[in-house]
Amino acid sequence: MFGRPEGGTFGDGVSRVAYSDADIQGRSYVMRLFREIRLAARIDQAGNIIGRREGADAAARPIVCGSHIDSVPNGGNFDGALGVMAAIEALQAIAEAGVTTRHPIEVVAWSREEGVAFGHGLFGSRAAVGEPVADELGQLWNGMTMAEAIKRIGGDPVHITQARRAPGSIHCYLELHVEQGGILDKAHIPIGIVEGIVASDRSQVVIRGVANHAGTTPMADRHDALVAAAHLTLAVQSVVTAAPGRQVGTVGKLDVTPNAPGVIPGVVRMTIQLNDLSGDKVHRLSDEVKARASEIASATRTDVEFISIGYHAAAATDPAIQEVIVDVSAAVGLKTTRLPSGAGHDAQMMARLGPMAMIFVPSIGGISHSPQELTTWDDCSRGATVLLETILKLDEMGLQGLD
Amino acid sequence: MFGRPEGGTFGDGVSRVAYSDADIQGRSYVMRLFREIRLAARIDQAGNIIGRREGADAAARPIVCGSHIDSVPNGGNFDGALGVMAAIEALQAIAEAGVTTRHPIEVVAWSREEGVAFGHGLFGSRAAVGEPVADELGQLWNGMTMAEAIKRIGGDPVHITQARRAPGSIHCYLELHVEQGGILDKAHIPIGIVEGIVASDRSQVVIRGVANHAGTTPMADRHDALVAAAHLTLAVQSVVTAAPGRQVGTVGKLDVTPNAPGVIPGVVRMTIQLNDLSGDKVHRLSDEVKARASEIASATRTDVEFISIGYHAAAATDPAIQEVIVDVSAAVGLKTTRLPSGAGHDAQMMARLGPMAMIFVPSIGGISHSPQELTTWDDCSRGATVLLETILKLDEMGLQGLD
Repeated sequence: MFGRPEGGTFGDGVSRVAYSDADIQGRSYVMRLFREIRLAARIDQAGNIIGRREGADAAARPIVCGSHIDSVPNGGNFDGALGVMAAIEALQAIAEAGVTTRHPIEVVAWSREEGVAFGHGLFGSRAAVGEPVADELGQLWNGMTMAEAIKRIGGDPVHITQARRAPGSIHCYLELHVEQGGILDKAHIPIGIVEGIVASDRSQVVIRGVANHAGTTPMADRHDALVAAAHLTLAVQSVVTAAPGRQVGTVGKLDVTPNAPGVIPGVVRMTIQLNDLSGDKVHRLSDEVKARASEIASATRTDVEFISIGYHAAAATDPAIQEVIVDVSAAVGLKTTRLPSGAGHDAQMMARLGPMAMIFVPSIGGISHSPQELTTWDDCSRGATVLLETILKLDEMGLQGLD
Repeated sequence: MFGRPEGGTFGDGVSRVAYSDADIQGRSYVMRLFREIRLAARIDQAGNIIGRREGADAAARPIVCGSHIDSVPNGGNFDGALGVMAAIEALQAIAEAGVTTRHPIEVVAWSREEGVAFGHGLFGSRAAVGEPVADELGQLWNGMTMAEAIKRIGGDPVHITQARRAPGSIHCYLELHVEQGGILDKAHIPIGIVEGIVASDRSQVVIRGVANHAGTTPMADRHDALVAAAHLTLAVQSVVTAAPGRQVGTVGKLDVTPNAPGVIPGVVRMTIQLNDLSGDKVHRLSDEVKARASEIASATRTDVEFISIGYHAAAATDPAIQEVIVDVSAAVGLKTTRLPSGAGHDAQMMARLGPMAMIFVPSIGGISHSPQELTTWDDCSRGATVLLETILKLDEMGLQGLD
């Protein structure tokens, strides 16, 4: 497995960070598989790799399937790679069965889906829908500029805007992915039908108090930024859990200044991330958290400032395709359930081009972004079967598409 | 002022970190002042600098006065330096008045009182009471080993245990220092009589939860180490403020792993420091905090481990000397109040050798360890006067000394 630690085994996961040597080796392997099943292979300007099988109808728009093969540092074996490999297998099965589809079918491995360590993710799919990624070409990624990184994988940074595909130019987009949460595993259900990809609201919060000597400053005279941050962390927790629903809220990053045992914290910088399938609910939660933050600022005599560092709208999946997935799963005897995707995926970008759907398979214990990430081979196989059957069914259907 | 930032003014404070060039320049200046007022000057094996004026009674034990001239990085102009300069001025006044005291009088500038940035403080005074500082000679301090640092300032690391002075070998120890808290400033009282130096209990707490994807992990399935840390931070606050008294508790340092906006915190490492004049109360508070931590661990499904990283017992000041300071202050028309020292001082070590007392002067706004640290020159002068008068009075008195 490309990016597996030196001398490691399957359980050691992979570090296949975008544009690294391991990523490039993985990409070469995918291109080789494309050629083995006689797909027309190309690399677009943003470094996405695309394999295409033509259909019978020259005027038909393509069914696009894909995911990504890059990983976070010390990531798992399944996140992303499963969706690419299953799409290749589906096309191999179609070829071996001698089936000619009406629509062309494309398999895409998107460039730099993961952004955890060094910057934003979804780079390739954002380029494909015409987001202004050219602005990011000067940014550093893992020791090189993004322009250098894109060149390194065979892209064309100078003409990156030409990677854009027009809204309405695809028949549909399908992505098989591991759930990365524990809902399917807990419920012992092999196939998840994604209702949508959640909206995500991320803020940086700066709390300013007064640093002072921890031994000499009476409790009543303190302006302790960390005490305020503790109140705010628990406020996020209570606002998010106050109402029923699948909304989540997380303080993931928190830095204290000066951060010394004997000094009262003067400044805390922390992030708050709120997610829900309903953008309205995310906005409401955000307003509630901010209201609580004002109260906390007064009570702790600190100053609290919110800076938005990114809002991603929710992306709906296509209801007709959801039904198809239910039907084809039932036809092969697989139970399904509907659930939101709490993680972002390239599919959320592709939803701007046409009808989009995602198929989830169980993550054992809900673990991901970790070498411990695990989906059984049986579940991988079930997911790939459902993907194949869904492609074949959608090939025969008219889809509503974009307005 | 030695260690003032290049081109800076008084308000920019000093960075006179122990064993730095600035510290060495400051030490040379102090030695020069010793010689100007004809004190016998020496550097002991631990690098403490000592100026001594003999008294009339060759058998009498010395009255020792002192403080330190090193500072924290970006520290203030008064913390430590005031006590050394005022002691030198007192001896100059005694010399100029042609007074012969019965006891010898020593002025000491202790080596490395401050330990904030690189390690433990009170190095020189710990050596002087026979603490096992030799164990620390291999440790790094500001880019050099402590052995090199001690050599650099004229000490003798090989024979450092010879810096030890025997219990009962001093008549008394006196230290004038800025309060570093806001009690005197708020009450408009120029002279503080220190009741004792507080006990300090410092723990490192490690909270272990489970890092997971912030978007996909339902709130009910989380083991969020930072949520637990927030509860514990507020528990420290509530345990400490539940009862009346001057006890304080501080979470000064907190580090999150992996510390990324989109990842539920898996591990938090934080410090808890508890201070009070009563060691019993500190132990009681510590037990209460630990009990609360166990409840928090259960409620948040995390693991909480406490590691003690230093307990300093409280150091009592001598009641008879406290009375002398009240009397000499009243005699020169200065109001006094009694208060604990929330900060550690070399005086807490010297209390092991004989009767010890401290005189505090107001810190404006209670600020210290900052360039904004300020004590008015009038208050400095008042403190120096009280120090001088106290020395003269104690020279005439028998003191109980150690048991």
